[in-house]
Amino acid sequence: MLTNLSEGSFTPREELANRINQLRKNMEKQGVSFCLILQNVDLFYFAGTVQKGVLAISVDHDPLLFIERNVDRAAVETGLEITPIKRDKDVKDILVARGILKGKGGMELDVVPVSVFERWKSLLSFENFIDVWPLIRDLRIVKSPFEIIQVKKSGALCDHVFDKAKDVVRLGMREVDIAAILEAEGRMVGHQGFLRMRGLNQEMMNLYITHGLSGTIPSSGDVPIAGAGVTHAIAQGPSLNKIEKGVPVVIDYGGGYNGYITDETRPFVVGELKERFRKPYEVAKEIVEDATVFGKDGVNGSELFNRAEEKAKKAGLEGYFMGFGPGKVSFVGHGLGLEINELPVITPRHHIFLQEGMVFAFEPKFIFPGEGAIGIEVDYIVRKDKLERVTLTPIDLVIL
Amino acid sequence: MLTNLSEGSFTPREELANRINQLRKNMEKQGVSFCLILQNVDLFYFAGTVQKGVLAISVDHDPLLFIERNVDRAAVETGLEITPIKRDKDVKDILVARGILKGKGGMELDVVPVSVFERWKSLLSFENFIDVWPLIRDLRIVKSPFEIIQVKKSGALCDHVFDKAKDVVRLGMREVDIAAILEAEGRMVGHQGFLRMRGLNQEMMNLYITHGLSGTIPSSGDVPIAGAGVTHAIAQGPSLNKIEKGVPVVIDYGGGYNGYITDETRPFVVGELKERFRKPYEVAKEIVEDATVFGKDGVNGSELFNRAEEKAKKAGLEGYFMGFGPGKVSFVGHGLGLEINELPVITPRHHIFLQEGMVFAFEPKFIFPGEGAIGIEVDYIVRKDKLERVTLTPIDLVIL
Repeated sequence: MLTNLSEGSFTPREELANRINQLRKNMEKQGVSFCLILQNVDLFYFAGTVQKGVLAISVDHDPLLFIERNVDRAAVETGLEITPIKRDKDVKDILVARGILKGKGGMELDVVPVSVFERWKSLLSFENFIDVWPLIRDLRIVKSPFEIIQVKKSGALCDHVFDKAKDVVRLGMREVDIAAILEAEGRMVGHQGFLRMRGLNQEMMNLYITHGLSGTIPSSGDVPIAGAGVTHAIAQGPSLNKIEKGVPVVIDYGGGYNGYITDETRPFVVGELKERFRKPYEVAKEIVEDATVFGKDGVNGSELFNRAEEKAKKAGLEGYFMGFGPGKVSFVGHGLGLEINELPVITPRHHIFLQEGMVFAFEPKFIFPGEGAIGIEVDYIVRKDKLERVTLTPIDLVIL
Repeated sequence: MLTNLSEGSFTPREELANRINQLRKNMEKQGVSFCLILQNVDLFYFAGTVQKGVLAISVDHDPLLFIERNVDRAAVETGLEITPIKRDKDVKDILVARGILKGKGGMELDVVPVSVFERWKSLLSFENFIDVWPLIRDLRIVKSPFEIIQVKKSGALCDHVFDKAKDVVRLGMREVDIAAILEAEGRMVGHQGFLRMRGLNQEMMNLYITHGLSGTIPSSGDVPIAGAGVTHAIAQGPSLNKIEKGVPVVIDYGGGYNGYITDETRPFVVGELKERFRKPYEVAKEIVEDATVFGKDGVNGSELFNRAEEKAKKAGLEGYFMGFGPGKVSFVGHGLGLEINELPVITPRHHIFLQEGMVFAFEPKFIFPGEGAIGIEVDYIVRKDKLERVTLTPIDLVIL
């Protein structure tokens, strides 16, 4: 084995066992007798590996981790016992022999494609499946101390990139060139390579840099600022736009370390910030400072949203808060973990009470049609009596 | 609108119409009266935009492109008429009013998740859907002259990156640092940002660089060489491995331009190539040269595979050809287009006859357990009487 595989950071065996046991309890409550985990991120969560395989979790049997390839690699990474298989068909015989295929089964129906689902049903001669994603999602929402360590290492990548950005962003440079340099910087100090977003058509880059007009073009994604990209075939990310004086350069970077994602934004400007963006910047900063003080275990996420929106209203900026017109999004924060679109969502649409160990990005942003955008995004770990910042980088505008 | 949106390269209106009409013909043959396109890549193929929406194609009505956001952007990009919607629920009323919801419907069931499918069935109060992906896939297999232009521009990115690699790869550098620099190079000259691979758990990077041991570790993916990555959470891509003398540095780069993907590999070495890799390199080169001469419209893809395997056998290298042991893959080439895993697959497992306008990557590679890998990958456009190379870079080993 290569020494550069992340041996020191494999998910501890006891932690995998805890997660699986929690899921079994929740399955039992829902009358689900077994479930099959097919998606690589959920597999990583419960088995500590993304090697090709299927994890069968049953309420009354030990978990069965079937691995097709690479068995040797999976064996080094997982704390679970491995059952090597040649093809997915081999799974049925073992499940039948152990009497696992009974009652109500579960699969991740939010991500498993119809034809894959049909294939498994026919393979197993078993039809009775419900969606087990809500159970998994609710487990993943609270991060363990082990996970928080990974989140912080991921946050350190953001610190590094924001620090480097001060030396990179210059008048006249194109967004895409700045992005290329900063992504390379992140990669060299440990970024995992790409980030994951759950669901059909959910695509993303590691770094978004927008400036002026490019920050104001709504994208297909449910995000406030996505950039124009260099081609309509991707339609997001940095564009060929060149940096001008006085207009905010908004850098939104996603750290990725051992699977764990962080997602922070800082505003930069070359020269003196244009009048248009001064008040919104101050309000964004105020919103972050308020949330940092107000948030803690037990606080209603929608209250965090309302306080933020209230400050935007007071400043007469409500029409630009989190976008304008049909590009406005209905949240000011989103959960982080192995995927960038986890719970909790900080939105007025539903109540989620913050709970110790939750991790979320909080991103007050203002977008002015035809002019540009400005905003800040910080990641928080929910603690008993406070919100703890994930990174060390100050939230202030960086003037270059 | 920003001037840097790729206005000059929007898919021509007539081409979109042709593609849709071809699909309608094939739908008619299969008794499918309408289909809904939800996946962004297929949407891009038929509508020329990846904005959030749904395309309804009916055998007896004009296509309906429903766009939720960003309508303004989609309007600039697509040659189709747009029906703006507020939410996907709005689609039903219009489809019902036009009498489209009848007979047998089609959806991309290979990628549409079960819960999304269930939601649409309930939204439309319509149940009778079959998988329309085989029809779409068979259309996308042959590229139009417009598409070939994009493929060649994508190939030019490979040329640029392979050329730069000569100045970047040096003794003692880590794979990941070389990758970061070269990915940035590609991005600065027009790479779209990321590449697309169809299916559950199909993830990829833009650049793979492997060296020695890292090139020999099978991954979860159905690829001969994936690299070890920097973390088990991703488990592919460049590692922290440092470049040593005499051992091949295998660089596999995916160009991406206006959605179109190219995928080529070149071997590099610092100093004199170790004995172990000399013959396999010569055989890989011979296999590519043979395919270039032998391949053309009408040739059986499995024959291309057999000729390649035959040469590997003759050289006594069969056990290492396209991997070893359980890591061996059963193909030597794969189709390219908007996704990297298109048809034709060049494999002995099934017969696909090459057809003018097909584009595929051809990648004879040899992997030696514990030692390293070497190989070449070139992209071909199938022509009436030959295979045309997509890039200009020679296939020879680069000695540094």
